[in-house]
This record gives sequence, structure tokens and C-alpha cells, in this order.
Amino acid sequence: MNLIIIHPCEPDSSGRVCLTGERAGHIQNVLKAVPGKSLRIGLLNGSTGCGTVESTAGGEVVLRCEFDKKIPARPAVDLLLALPRPKVMKRLWAQLSALGVGRIILTNAEKVERCYFDSHVLEPDFYTARLIEGLQQAGDTRLPDVQIVRQLKPFLEDEFDGIFPTSGIRLLADPSGTCNMFQRLEVAAPQRICLAVGPEGGWTPYELELFAACGFQIFNAGPRILRTDTACVALLSLLTLPSGSDEK
Amino acid sequence: MNLIIIHPCEPDSSGRVCLTGERAGHIQNVLKAVPGKSLRIGLLNGSTGCGTVESTAGGEVVLRCEFDKKIPARPAVDLLLALPRPKVMKRLWAQLSALGVGRIILTNAEKVERCYFDSHVLEPDFYTARLIEGLQQAGDTRLPDVQIVRQLKPFLEDEFDGIFPTSGIRLLADPSGTCNMFQRLEVAAPQRICLAVGPEGGWTPYELELFAACGFQIFNAGPRILRTDTACVALLSLLTLPSGSDEK
Repeated sequence: MNLIIIHPCEPDSSGRVCLTGERAGHIQNVLKAVPGKSLRIGLLNGSTGCGTVESTAGGEVVLRCEFDKKIPARPAVDLLLALPRPKVMKRLWAQLSALGVGRIILTNAEKVERCYFDSHVLEPDFYTARLIEGLQQAGDTRLPDVQIVRQLKPFLEDEFDGIFPTSGIRLLADPSGTCNMFQRLEVAAPQRICLAVGPEGGWTPYELELFAACGFQIFNAGPRILRTDTACVALLSLLTLPSGSDEK
Repeated sequence: MNLIIIHPCEPDSSGRVCLTGERAGHIQNVLKAVPGKSLRIGLLNGSTGCGTVESTAGGEVVLRCEFDKKIPARPAVDLLLALPRPKVMKRLWAQLSALGVGRIILTNAEKVERCYFDSHVLEPDFYTARLIEGLQQAGDTRLPDVQIVRQLKPFLEDEFDGIFPTSGIRLLADPSGTCNMFQRLEVAAPQRICLAVGPEGGWTPYELELFAACGFQIFNAGPRILRTDTACVALLSLLTLPSGSDEK
């Protein structure tokens, strides 16, 4: 935990918060913080700040919170991902929020098994905890929006333009692509980007047509075929890390 | 498995190989290959080619192998990684070989727990199987060299120049860095690159001095603090994916 996330409803009127459970355990056992110690804190979806330990007793830690005025910017990249196996998705949540994603759209596809949608890893309580874990790791406060899509075609045809700006850049990695990712990004820099990542086995030709009709530009990410989780982290890094696209 | 890796000692004098176990199971149950079907194959550390199924019976698959003359290039990036927790390292092996790494050096550091070195995930049989899994995923044949270093200081001072060219680019990601990664890479493109990734909690100032004395350039990978496994995949992607450094 490089940042302790506080829910907006937690601080009392004097700006104090009484933590229990995992966060209190981390502060006492890992950070070994004693009264007077300052810790980096952040309001979920709000500003970061400084929490001063006032007391630690039993399983409880009381922090006096001071928050900055500035709220971290919402990450500029959205991810549209064909739902991977629950075991993979379970591990991916925290990695995605750590890398910084504005919105995570998990979708069905021809090569996605229907039973994946019944998994507990898609329950809001489960994934919100994992996403907050990633925020606390990375030092961010902006919780990604999550949307679960069971039918790709009507979503792309009827819904997508409503949630993603038509001026934004829509990218899809596929071996059939002929351009590279940065050729597409050089055109216009500070726009929202939506990256689509396919299932193991890839999108079908029909699905690729649906994406192309929805304005997605298909780029080639090289000859190596990566597993979904590796591909997500790899491609998002190219878009989000400052050594990547920002410097172009 | 997007490529079936064959060990150089496996084919007989007629170029036939009789597979059992995991590869035969994959060919029969996942690829559902029948006699006459062509599969992508690769000789470990050698060329790729085409394997024609001659027979499938019981748990056995006989392939007639034809290999190209050309051997895939050894990946141009090496990774020097402070040994992470065994659970993390276990998952990382296949991801590293899938992304393409020439050499993996796992090292001790102040913030690495000594007991990690006793884990079975550092046994050659264990990690070679995982590395081959990553090669079969990515379609590569070049097995990374693996070196385990228990003392960082003598390794950097006495050994490193012997295994990594002094003309190569040595990079280390740390929040103290002031340049960005690509500034360093723009200087000279087709050279070997060694990327150093620290432990959770980072390298100590003393360790950073050792790296600097060994010619490592310290760059800043942005404000987000990533977990070791995410950081490895993220930073290696910037160096290895064609949408990354190749296009600079």
C-alpha cells in the first residue's frame, strides 16, 4: 500500500477517520506507524493528502486527514476486453487499476465461454476491492468504471458511441492489422483512447468487421502471441507509461 | 500453444518425432488434429517449421518435421530482476519468455528476503518448463539464459561486464530518475539493452550507487508505483513490442 484509500463517507466532521481491518493491520504491522507519523492517503475518486496517525490501539488506527484541493485526472485510456477465464480476470483487476484505466468494459465474444459470466470475479464487491488494491499500490484514487457486456454487436452498434467520445481514438490489436499503434496516436495526442483486447484465440473475422464499423483502427502488435493478461498489461503500458506515448 | 517446441534430440534420423504427454494431449484434445494436419513447430533454440501429423493413437502423436533454415534472433533485451516472492516469480517465468528476453538475471538485494532463494521456482527443471510454456504461447524458440545471483555487489563489479557488452544500454527504473526511457534509447537503436527492475520497496540508495557505477542509467517510469510483475511486463513491453521502441 503506497497510498491508503479512504471512502468519502469515512471521515467524521473533524476530518478524523478510524480505520480497522486490512488498512489498520497494514499501518500497524507493515508500516509500523506510531502516533505522529504521516501517511499518504487518498479519498476514493477524490484528492490525495496526508493522514497523521493520532492513535493505534488494538486493531484500530485513528488518522487525522488533510486533503489537497487537486483531484488526480481520470486516466485517459479505456479498455474493452473480451472476458478472460475467471482465474486470469481475478489477477487482472488490480493490475488494470494500478496501470490506470478510466473504464473497463468486459465483453462477450465468439471465443469467450458463456460460463465465465457467472463467476464471482464479476461481482461488484469482489472487483471493487481488487481495483482499490491496485489504486493503493499505484498511488491513484480514480476507481475505473466497470461495465459488463453480454452481447457485443448491439453494444458496439447502439451503445458505444454514447459512452466513448466519437473524437476519441479506438484501437484494436490483431495480427491482421497493418499499421502500428503509434502511427495512430501521432495524429492527435490528448484524446481519450479505447483499446480493445481480444480473447485467447482472437476475435473472429465477423467481430473484427463489427469493430471496424464502429471506428476501431486495427493495429499489429508484432509477431508474438501474448496471453490475455500479458497483452493487456503490455499494450496498456505502451499507452499509459510516460516513457511510452506521452513522449511521442 | 501457438507453436509446439521440440527438443533437438527428439526427432529421429527420418525427421519424425513421437510426442507423448502434454504436447500430444494438446494436439489431440485442443487442436483436434487428425493425420495430414500441419502444425507450427519449433526446435528449442533453433528454427521454426512445420510438423505434419502422421498418426495419433492413444496418448501418442507422430509428427514428420520440416524445419526452416532461419533461426529466430535472440531477443535483444536482458532483464536483471531483484528476486520477487516465489508466488510472483512462478507466474512471471512464462510471461518473460513470451515477451522475449535474452537473459534473465535474478539477484539478491537489501529488500529481497533470503528465503526466496530456497524456493522450488528457482530449480532449472521448474523454470525451464515455464519458460518453454511462454515460448509455445508466443511462437518463439529462443530459451532465455537464466542466472541466479546471490550477491549483487561482486556481480555488478566483477561479473556483469563479462556477460553484457559494455557498448549495450543499461537502464534502471527508479522514482529518483530524471530522464525517460526513450531519451536513452534514441541515442543508438540496435544494441543490447539490459533492464534492471527492483524489489517491492525499491533498491536502496547504496544499491542505486552500485548500478550507477556499473553504467546503469536511471530513468523515471512515471508516478505510478507498480508491483514487480506488472512493472516487468510493462517496462519490457516498452522495449520489445514493435509499437514501442522499434518505431522510435
